Amino acid sequence: MSEPRVEQIVLASRPQGLPIPANFRLEKVAMPAMPEGGSLLRVLYLSLDPYMRGRMDDRKSYAKPLGVGDVMTGESVCEVIASDRQGYAVGDIVLAPTGWRTHAAMGGFVPMRKLDPKLAPISTGLGVLGMPGFTAYAGLSIIGKPKRGETVVVAAASGPVGSLVGQLARLAGARAVGIAGGAKKCRFVLDELRFDASIDHRAPDFPKQLAAACPKGIDVYFENVGGSIWQAVLPLLNAFARVPVCGLIAQYNAVVDQEAGPNLLPATMREILSKSLTLRGFINYEFANEHYPEFLKTVSARIQAGNIRYREDIAEGLENAPAAFIAMLEGRNFGKALVHVADAP
Amino acid sequence: MSEPRVEQIVLASRPQGLPIPANFRLEKVAMPAMPEGGSLLRVLYLSLDPYMRGRMDDRKSYAKPLGVGDVMTGESVCEVIASDRQGYAVGDIVLAPTGWRTHAAMGGFVPMRKLDPKLAPISTGLGVLGMPGFTAYAGLSIIGKPKRGETVVVAAASGPVGSLVGQLARLAGARAVGIAGGAKKCRFVLDELRFDASIDHRAPDFPKQLAAACPKGIDVYFENVGGSIWQAVLPLLNAFARVPVCGLIAQYNAVVDQEAGPNLLPATMREILSKSLTLRGFINYEFANEHYPEFLKTVSARIQAGNIRYREDIAEGLENAPAAFIAMLEGRNFGKALVHVADAP
Repeated sequence: MSEPRVEQIVLASRPQGLPIPANFRLEKVAMPAMPEGGSLLRVLYLSLDPYMRGRMDDRKSYAKPLGVGDVMTGESVCEVIASDRQGYAVGDIVLAPTGWRTHAAMGGFVPMRKLDPKLAPISTGLGVLGMPGFTAYAGLSIIGKPKRGETVVVAAASGPVGSLVGQLARLAGARAVGIAGGAKKCRFVLDELRFDASIDHRAPDFPKQLAAACPKGIDVYFENVGGSIWQAVLPLLNAFARVPVCGLIAQYNAVVDQEAGPNLLPATMREILSKSLTLRGFINYEFANEHYPEFLKTVSARIQAGNIRYREDIAEGLENAPAAFIAMLEGRNFGKALVHVADAP
Repeated sequence: MSEPRVEQIVLASRPQGLPIPANFRLEKVAMPAMPEGGSLLRVLYLSLDPYMRGRMDDRKSYAKPLGVGDVMTGESVCEVIASDRQGYAVGDIVLAPTGWRTHAAMGGFVPMRKLDPKLAPISTGLGVLGMPGFTAYAGLSIIGKPKRGETVVVAAASGPVGSLVGQLARLAGARAVGIAGGAKKCRFVLDELRFDASIDHRAPDFPKQLAAACPKGIDVYFENVGGSIWQAVLPLLNAFARVPVCGLIAQYNAVVDQEAGPNLLPATMREILSKSLTLRGFINYEFANEHYPEFLKTVSARIQAGNIRYREDIAEGLENAPAAFIAMLEGRNFGKALVHVADAP
């Protein structure tokens, strides 16, 4: 018997609204056996993403909810430490859906992707060059389709999706307006990410500031938060505006009051009709087969050229993943939320 | 001076909710002068359409609202009785945006379209071969894109838009489910229009009946009513479902209670995200330049072949237009609502 030196974090109980530490439990288990035809991985970086909050609820969505006691869902960058799978050798750096674990056994049919450590730091495989980056790229280029001179608005603009949305919009010749929480993040969006404008959604006159930052209205609103920001955006949308919907973080944690009146649906439907709006929900992997290679090529070249910047917020140690996850859901992270689980080889 | 023998109906006051007869006023005015380079028209059939209700409000929409005292907006089929405009001769039958009038002077740049009386009865230029028909055709073929074996749901299924949506869906190999008000209309949808199923939205267990009629879920919901029907449709929508939004008749007449809670927006946004839905508002003329000729050719051939049927509900005399319009908004019409203003030559 091997010693129980593998750590994993499971869903201990379902959260009501914002998760609390007691919703998670750290377990120590034995090192898994090497699956026939598969690989054994050592996790280096774990990604923390808003969608994980949805999996904690017992509600039908695009993916099955977690059961209580299940290991938290998640992607990570790993080192292959043993492999019986063609194309994956010991020492390779891979992206894999390991869940919140220090080590993971991946069967031969689990989708994994090799990372090229020469392209960019391996942690970017979970951020600007990974799922969040591709979400931004696909939603903006396939659904949003900003034209030169149009205005693109995105919330959570200092985060991994929003920051790339705005930078890609600018590179397409559009005006990029970012919404973020607090002066520090707003400054970062303006100075580091070089958006055209940034607005603090905590400002009491936020809707007025947003209108002032969008003198020609809004042509693309990249919806990744939902809630009150949508209400401020709605009257500013231009005819034929496009709204890729990839997340509703403000809704995930709401408990009961989001259903309280007034009923905001009729006004939204009226605007959809009278302005010929397009609202389109999407999950990044819908577009992955067709567009991932071009995304990787385009964005990594832009990073190397200095035209695209990114920021990471890295917590230390798997045991701190729940706290970092909760902080991210509260908007207290600053950059792509990651957990450093172990050093790269 | 000519005698005041031209009649017109103006907006006398703005309605609160459902219009009442006092919101309209019949005026007698002098025959207009022939505009230089234009035409003088005698109205034969006036079209009554739900969008006109929106124009009566003082609210920004895709078109300017009417002023109190303005002639009601509307399209009609007319006979040219004098013409100084190239391509339009006395005796021609044309479609023109005359408003609710017995005679109209149309300047040389007003969009008019000649109808071919041999193609179909001229009244169809306002219905199945006109704007409502094209709305159905464009929304379904460009946004809805039903595939063979998919399920298409449409409300107001006995009306001019809905009836064509369902018949075109069937011709595309999809399952057509119509929603209508009352047993008579439901029977017509099933027997005459040959939908696969029809449901009475007044039935107390309407959501359950709709679910039973859509055993494989809903792939296209053609939204032309809004309100409670949307709430029944939402949980049945399949992943990647398309929702062309061309009307919200149930909302037009609501006064205050539509804004009363609960707030239904978060649930709609959640479904948009989790099912990768597309909601797309549209006005038919967005697509007219590119698609009108193909629509006219396709649908008139289908009518002549007996594959597409239509029904008209014709009121007699311009003075009865307000009552017929109110009846239509209440769903008391049965077929495309028209007013017979004068006999064809």
